[in-house]
Amino acid sequence: MQKEKITELLKKFKAGRISQQKVLKALTSLPYQDIGIANIDTHRTLRRGLPEVIFCQGKTPQQAAIIFQKMQGLVMATRAEAAHYKAIKKLCPGAVYYSQARIITNAQVKQKKSGDYAAVITAGTSDIPVAEEAALTAEIFGFRVVRMWDVGVAGLHRLLDKMDVLQEAKVIIAAAGMEGALPSVVGGLVSCPVIAVPTSVGYGASFGGITALLAMLNSCSPGVSVVNIDNGFGAGYLAAAILKGCKK
Amino acid sequence: MQKEKITELLKKFKAGRISQQKVLKALTSLPYQDIGIANIDTHRTLRRGLPEVIFCQGKTPQQAAIIFQKMQGLVMATRAEAAHYKAIKKLCPGAVYYSQARIITNAQVKQKKSGDYAAVITAGTSDIPVAEEAALTAEIFGFRVVRMWDVGVAGLHRLLDKMDVLQEAKVIIAAAGMEGALPSVVGGLVSCPVIAVPTSVGYGASFGGITALLAMLNSCSPGVSVVNIDNGFGAGYLAAAILKGCKK
Amino acid sequence: MQKEKITELLKKFKAGRISQQKVLKALTSLPYQDIGIANIDTHRTLRRGLPEVIFCQGKTPQQAAIIFQKMQGLVMATRAEAAHYKAIKKLCPGAVYYSQARIITNAQVKQKKSGDYAAVITAGTSDIPVAEEAALTAEIFGFRVVRMWDVGVAGLHRLLDKMDVLQEAKVIIAAAGMEGALPSVVGGLVSCPVIAVPTSVGYGASFGGITALLAMLNSCSPGVSVVNIDNGFGAGYLAAAILKGCKK
Amino acid sequence: MQKEKITELLKKFKAGRISQQKVLKALTSLPYQDIGIANIDTHRTLRRGLPEVIFCQGKTPQQAAIIFQKMQGLVMATRAEAAHYKAIKKLCPGAVYYSQARIITNAQVKQKKSGDYAAVITAGTSDIPVAEEAALTAEIFGFRVVRMWDVGVAGLHRLLDKMDVLQEAKVIIAAAGMEGALPSVVGGLVSCPVIAVPTSVGYGASFGGITALLAMLNSCSPGVSVVNIDNGFGAGYLAAAILKGCKK
Amino acid sequence: MQKEKITELLKKFKAGRISQQKVLKALTSLPYQDIGIANIDTHRTLRRGLPEVIFCQGKTPQQAAIIFQKMQGLVMATRAEAAHYKAIKKLCPGAVYYSQARIITNAQVKQKKSGDYAAVITAGTSDIPVAEEAALTAEIFGFRVVRMWDVGVAGLHRLLDKMDVLQEAKVIIAAAGMEGALPSVVGGLVSCPVIAVPTSVGYGASFGGITALLAMLNSCSPGVSVVNIDNGFGAGYLAAAILKGCKK
Amino acid sequence: MQKEKITELLKKFKAGRISQQKVLKALTSLPYQDIGIANIDTHRTLRRGLPEVIFCQGKTPQQAAIIFQKMQGLVMATRAEAAHYKAIKKLCPGAVYYSQARIITNAQVKQKKSGDYAAVITAGTSDIPVAEEAALTAEIFGFRVVRMWDVGVAGLHRLLDKMDVLQEAKVIIAAAGMEGALPSVVGGLVSCPVIAVPTSVGYGASFGGITALLAMLNSCSPGVSVVNIDNGFGAGYLAAAILKGCKK
Amino acid sequence: MQKEKITELLKKFKAGRISQQKVLKALTSLPYQDIGIANIDTHRTLRRGLPEVIFCQGKTPQQAAIIFQKMQGLVMATRAEAAHYKAIKKLCPGAVYYSQARIITNAQVKQKKSGDYAAVITAGTSDIPVAEEAALTAEIFGFRVVRMWDVGVAGLHRLLDKMDVLQEAKVIIAAAGMEGALPSVVGGLVSCPVIAVPTSVGYGASFGGITALLAMLNSCSPGVSVVNIDNGFGAGYLAAAILKGCKK
Amino acid sequence: MQKEKITELLKKFKAGRISQQKVLKALTSLPYQDIGIANIDTHRTLRRGLPEVIFCQGKTPQQAAIIFQKMQGLVMATRAEAAHYKAIKKLCPGAVYYSQARIITNAQVKQKKSGDYAAVITAGTSDIPVAEEAALTAEIFGFRVVRMWDVGVAGLHRLLDKMDVLQEAKVIIAAAGMEGALPSVVGGLVSCPVIAVPTSVGYGASFGGITALLAMLNSCSPGVSVVNIDNGFGAGYLAAAILKGCKK
Repeated sequence: MQKEKITELLKKFKAGRISQQKVLKALTSLPYQDIGIANIDTHRTLRRGLPEVIFCQGKTPQQAAIIFQKMQGLVMATRAEAAHYKAIKKLCPGAVYYSQARIITNAQVKQKKSGDYAAVITAGTSDIPVAEEAALTAEIFGFRVVRMWDVGVAGLHRLLDKMDVLQEAKVIIAAAGMEGALPSVVGGLVSCPVIAVPTSVGYGASFGGITALLAMLNSCSPGVSVVNIDNGFGAGYLAAAILKGCKK
Repeated sequence: MQKEKITELLKKFKAGRISQQKVLKALTSLPYQDIGIANIDTHRTLRRGLPEVIFCQGKTPQQAAIIFQKMQGLVMATRAEAAHYKAIKKLCPGAVYYSQARIITNAQVKQKKSGDYAAVITAGTSDIPVAEEAALTAEIFGFRVVRMWDVGVAGLHRLLDKMDVLQEAKVIIAAAGMEGALPSVVGGLVSCPVIAVPTSVGYGASFGGITALLAMLNSCSPGVSVVNIDNGFGAGYLAAAILKGCKK
Repeated sequence: MQKEKITELLKKFKAGRISQQKVLKALTSLPYQDIGIANIDTHRTLRRGLPEVIFCQGKTPQQAAIIFQKMQGLVMATRAEAAHYKAIKKLCPGAVYYSQARIITNAQVKQKKSGDYAAVITAGTSDIPVAEEAALTAEIFGFRVVRMWDVGVAGLHRLLDKMDVLQEAKVIIAAAGMEGALPSVVGGLVSCPVIAVPTSVGYGASFGGITALLAMLNSCSPGVSVVNIDNGFGAGYLAAAILKGCKK
Repeated sequence: MQKEKITELLKKFKAGRISQQKVLKALTSLPYQDIGIANIDTHRTLRRGLPEVIFCQGKTPQQAAIIFQKMQGLVMATRAEAAHYKAIKKLCPGAVYYSQARIITNAQVKQKKSGDYAAVITAGTSDIPVAEEAALTAEIFGFRVVRMWDVGVAGLHRLLDKMDVLQEAKVIIAAAGMEGALPSVVGGLVSCPVIAVPTSVGYGASFGGITALLAMLNSCSPGVSVVNIDNGFGAGYLAAAILKGCKK
Repeated sequence: MQKEKITELLKKFKAGRISQQKVLKALTSLPYQDIGIANIDTHRTLRRGLPEVIFCQGKTPQQAAIIFQKMQGLVMATRAEAAHYKAIKKLCPGAVYYSQARIITNAQVKQKKSGDYAAVITAGTSDIPVAEEAALTAEIFGFRVVRMWDVGVAGLHRLLDKMDVLQEAKVIIAAAGMEGALPSVVGGLVSCPVIAVPTSVGYGASFGGITALLAMLNSCSPGVSVVNIDNGFGAGYLAAAILKGCKK
Repeated sequence: MQKEKITELLKKFKAGRISQQKVLKALTSLPYQDIGIANIDTHRTLRRGLPEVIFCQGKTPQQAAIIFQKMQGLVMATRAEAAHYKAIKKLCPGAVYYSQARIITNAQVKQKKSGDYAAVITAGTSDIPVAEEAALTAEIFGFRVVRMWDVGVAGLHRLLDKMDVLQEAKVIIAAAGMEGALPSVVGGLVSCPVIAVPTSVGYGASFGGITALLAMLNSCSPGVSVVNIDNGFGAGYLAAAILKGCKK
Repeated sequence: MQKEKITELLKKFKAGRISQQKVLKALTSLPYQDIGIANIDTHRTLRRGLPEVIFCQGKTPQQAAIIFQKMQGLVMATRAEAAHYKAIKKLCPGAVYYSQARIITNAQVKQKKSGDYAAVITAGTSDIPVAEEAALTAEIFGFRVVRMWDVGVAGLHRLLDKMDVLQEAKVIIAAAGMEGALPSVVGGLVSCPVIAVPTSVGYGASFGGITALLAMLNSCSPGVSVVNIDNGFGAGYLAAAILKGCKK
Repeated sequence: MQKEKITELLKKFKAGRISQQKVLKALTSLPYQDIGIANIDTHRTLRRGLPEVIFCQGKTPQQAAIIFQKMQGLVMATRAEAAHYKAIKKLCPGAVYYSQARIITNAQVKQKKSGDYAAVITAGTSDIPVAEEAALTAEIFGFRVVRMWDVGVAGLHRLLDKMDVLQEAKVIIAAAGMEGALPSVVGGLVSCPVIAVPTSVGYGASFGGITALLAMLNSCSPGVSVVNIDNGFGAGYLAAAILKGCKK
């Protein structure tokens, strides 16, 4: 690729086949070309350690399918509706659809059963789709996930009962709507980072997740950080980035 | 008072000293006069069961002092600064100032040590002034209060440790700023009404108590209702109204 | 249950059948297991005095039906659509659907005609569904309710006309949309607690109930507290908790 | 002035001293000059029926004084601090300062005692400065005002007691902070236009008057319109405009 | 009615048929009954000078039709959809539907062609439905209206061209969405009251009319007051109230 | 038109057929009529340099078609749906529909390939419709546009790679949703004006484009100004106005 | 600079003094170093065409003074208080302070009297400081400015009177607070770009400039774009960028 | 401690010195006491891995000093003003004050020069205090920090120049005000977690950091999470939690 190009340039220059002027000009513009290569995902994987994903929302099934087909290695599409899956399936018969998480991958996701893990928990049952998106994302990136649903603060015993699993986790993703109190309570019980995911679950003054978002940002427990409302993918990606660091 | 006036009217009418026309006219307008009397607090006590209070904020010390002096029975002024106290003290030497609660009364408040009680709790130490305003208000109205400070959700054990006192309370006032999660957690543990008081404690996206307010309104624990930000008086008044009902 | 478990442990220990080390470990984790029991609703009733309810919104009819079937004693589902009812009816033929209140119960609700009561009032006719949810909730929990619809402040006489019923109530639920002034006016006329329920009735700058919510939080009448927009269930639950206290 | 200019032009044209082309060009641009004259207030009075006023907020005392001195006829400055008055007094010894209303005029305001009137009412005592600004403004413009302070909805009888005065008014200005319910209640009792003035009185979720503003905009009583928060002058000006119409 | 009742009471009392005690009790509660009469609209007309209207939004066609049928004198329903009209038409064959204004009346509206008038103007063509609701409302109440559409500030000449009609009006209703500048400009040109109606016309940061609403509340031209977003009826009602005052 | 009218007036005056008084009166009112001419678009083109456009949103297809047919010269309709096109096509068979940009014109748009240009760029693929509206608008007004899609800041190299094209542009339109960072980064790299267009692309706390809008208004790069959310037309119009200035 | 470095590298490589490996490595990292040079302002001027400025707000006088002294060529500091000037003056005796605009420069600003110009206008007198910052900024960058203060829409004639100056401008900066209607009206009258600057002038629902900001973003006149509240510098900078384009 | 207590109980029980009943009762309440011990920080360290800190804001210097003195091991106070330091210094002479970071510790902080590190970067110079609080917090907890100030996106080269240091970091803290674009750009360049800290730097529509907060929550780069506005401590704490995980 890029290195080859420069090597070739230098060789030509040394061989006197191109002028110093011309090398200079080529080199000035190269670096950007060096970064901006045709095979986008390959570069992203190199730079960021995790592959690029296709955000289906706002894309037609056809657009999503074409991009899905063009990508290499691990391919992953988020916020995918059934229509997206249908279009992708046609071009890539091996594609798998995880409908609750709204994720399509080009290969069955394998769930690790041992090793460092992210605990993914929800306050209620309505938060599960967002949490599942987070959990599956981390699993797709190769990490172990332990799920715990419906452990909200209105029935504290349900949460305290899982203390062991929480305290052994390397990172916790806590999804909650309404008053979004779960991350604060969990944050006060563990030593690992807690990723708070506000969900749009609720009504009235929950304002589509704004209340949960604000509550999480004001958590009195340090060690808690927040992603966008319903952003399960972002939480799972971040958990993967943290787990990746743990392994080194 | 009013009853006397009507009685007198009826007597005059029976005695033929005034016409039916005139009685009719007087009676039509009486009811409003009957309600709107000069001695405001007396009426309020009759109608509402608890005396009217003087809200000092936005009143000059002189204004507050004059009203304080004119009121009868139990007199109580809220949001009182030192200057208000100074002015009131001059006119009413028996006035007592509770500076943390910013309340002035015309007599020392007596703390009941037994019987049904309101538990007043705070998430942190900065919430104490608001909670103290609530606690003292309920005490002024003659009810027993049990105080518990700094039992926020970041250190859950501090709260669980007080479970007995919470579960025996007839009403709980929970004051919290920041993410305002305390009422939700408490609400899930007890059977009595929980009055949530958002405080303006916090910074950044706490927006002067709005986040706590919204979180409390969205509490996943039923049995929780909310008053205005920093409204300790309102919470104490409401707790008194609930305790008053319990006694019957 | 739990007590038995501990007794057994102690017996085994005294009998020398298990080591001190092992008792120690078991005891450390016990309390949380003691709180978190398998039969969730039973525990909730014990702890909170009122049974847990199923919040149907965001649950599929199938999910709601399965949970409904598994619960014991008094079972109640809120925010239930016709589809939820259909699914529940299939599994629990005795289920009853109150469509205006959007509530499903496992037995006909009986309306008490005497004794202490909650007055449930609305500002307009559009507020009735929310008020009905509140009223029915209190009735399901076994309390008497008196309903008064369409007594908003634009025609004050309609409200003043019901003064007697309001002043005899042990708690009042006032539902209003638009400018949400009803609880303030009512609060000024009675001595019992007033639960204000903002409704999403209105248009333009009513912002789906935010204006009513804010107005109620700023009520100049003490004794008023607020629940979330359209949260009839929460208001009814709270009224029941207050009435429960009155009876003791 | 302008008329003279045009007359002169026409004379010159008739006399043949200037061409038709030139008259045409001059006339095209004249009208704007005709409108934009040096003596601003004179024109405003002609066009709008009421004189222009000096808004002191954001102006230095010196700036305010110079403008005050240059204006003719009835001169009025609003939002005036003591410093503004001091500066104006130096240049215009006859100036009068109404400190509560923060208004300076160039002549003592005369209060009419009979005839059509605007009723200016407040919910509480803290709303008086804003109401006083409104009342004085209407009086400065030559109209009769009847003031009624502290007739808020928490003590309805105080308001009902003044029914006669309210129902005889030609326009009512109702100033209220907090939940801003007063205009709705008043609006339901009278047939004249009600001008609602939200005030910044309150704390917490009153948001400096926003809650009162929103409540007033959502008034369930038709016949109510709203001006900006604390805009006493605007309310008084509008009341004057309405009273002016009544007289014709 | 009420007067009769009191007269009867007094007679019975004088005749010794009822005790003074009993009269006293009856009289205390009477006044409220005196206000709250059975025939609601009749009373509204007496008290407010204009009849009550049916707000169809949030009412089923059946509900609206039943109320429509029960009302007497001038009957008017606002925010009426075709379905409401269909249901009303069945019960009241004489009902007339003004679809653009979404108003149903029980008699054809007559448009006055002379006398004092309200000018109703819009910034753009999309504001016409709201303006038409305002105009028709004023006409239904018996007042003359002059309509002027699409005279927004982006093409100032269109507005200036109508100066005469504006300056002769007794009240102006100005409906505008987007930046809502029209009332400010008009307010600067006329002497009569200007009722600003923000409309939900616009997109993006117009926030469904909030921007127009805020702009109108901050109008630099005095004499402007504001009603709720899209509240054409409120504006028309207020204009009628002002015109009614003019005639006296 | 207007000039003729004045000429005629002057002639009559010179001829003595009308009095000086009468000319004076006529002239005073003329200027406004002079500005307000019948042929609206012609005047707009003269005054503003660019023709008026038809904003289809909120107009029925029929309304749009009638206006489209009546306009002369270059005709352009924005926010046009297929139904608008169908109606317009019927009346104006030459009309062309650019569906992605939602624009209809009365003639095929020609794309200039040389000369000064506006660069129109987007952060992602979902921003393209808004950007296309901007680009096409500028092209319709006769200016050259260079498009660059999907050059958002998450993959900086894609943007840096196009540096040359950006730095040669006379004006840049940058459309972005979500965090709206693109204009800030671009603004730091170029010397020409940057028009930032926030788009409603995103979810959760993107609030339909508000976040992008706010971010763009707070750009740390000077030379950036902002138009309304999704306002591609406004950006294209402004770019055209800037390019028009460049050519002089 | 950079080019020399690369040339030297290539020479060394050709001369065999450094390996191909080493050249490759150096070249890969060069481009970033090439962009990030020590002399920041020099680079900024090259890249952006206008020099970097010092934003004093949030900087201590000492910090501002040190940076001011280190910069070369045209130096300009904005949002400068008297204290900043004092500190800068000590290090740079030639510094000039424009207190109303809060700008410090290292040389007296010269006002051009002929040629293309930016018209800078304000709605009221309180908007002048912001407008003056804009005007002076454009003048500092070498462009001609024509100022017009207090031409707001409440007195339209004042604006129409200046039509000529507005229509000849190459760009207009319109600063307004309150309802922010000025840019819409101006935008409808001219053909050049209009830069709208919302100011924080106003009270109540002006929300520190938010209302003006929103109104300007929703301007019904195309050709208008908006900068941050009170951002006079940004408007002046943008006007300069547009004027710079005009000259080519 | 707790374990000892239980051991002792068990021994006494085995020895027959206390009844089974008594052990049972003691054990039931123990767990909470076990969690809620007097020496709070010791427990926090055990449970969370990092010591508790004193949040000085809202505490009097005296309160802060007393708590500071009572704590053991590593003691740290945040948001400390000079007055807090003065009071603490009196009781704990070894206390050290880092004024820019507003942190007080009971021992000089040692800066590690090698090993895994957190990179702490700012967009501008005004963001430094918040970033310094973050950096110092991580250093106090024993981790290495690399600081880079003023690398905002308006001058991209400054950031790209530090690519190496960024790409080697195990976690990055990016503090930015205004449009808050820095974390998005950085997030696109690295593979480690990025903690975004919105700062209250800016004016107008930056709304005290809300704009930056929203922008960061909407970051198009995955791997970015957000803490509260100006929450440097929270970011530093979280970075420490992540670095702690890396080391295992």
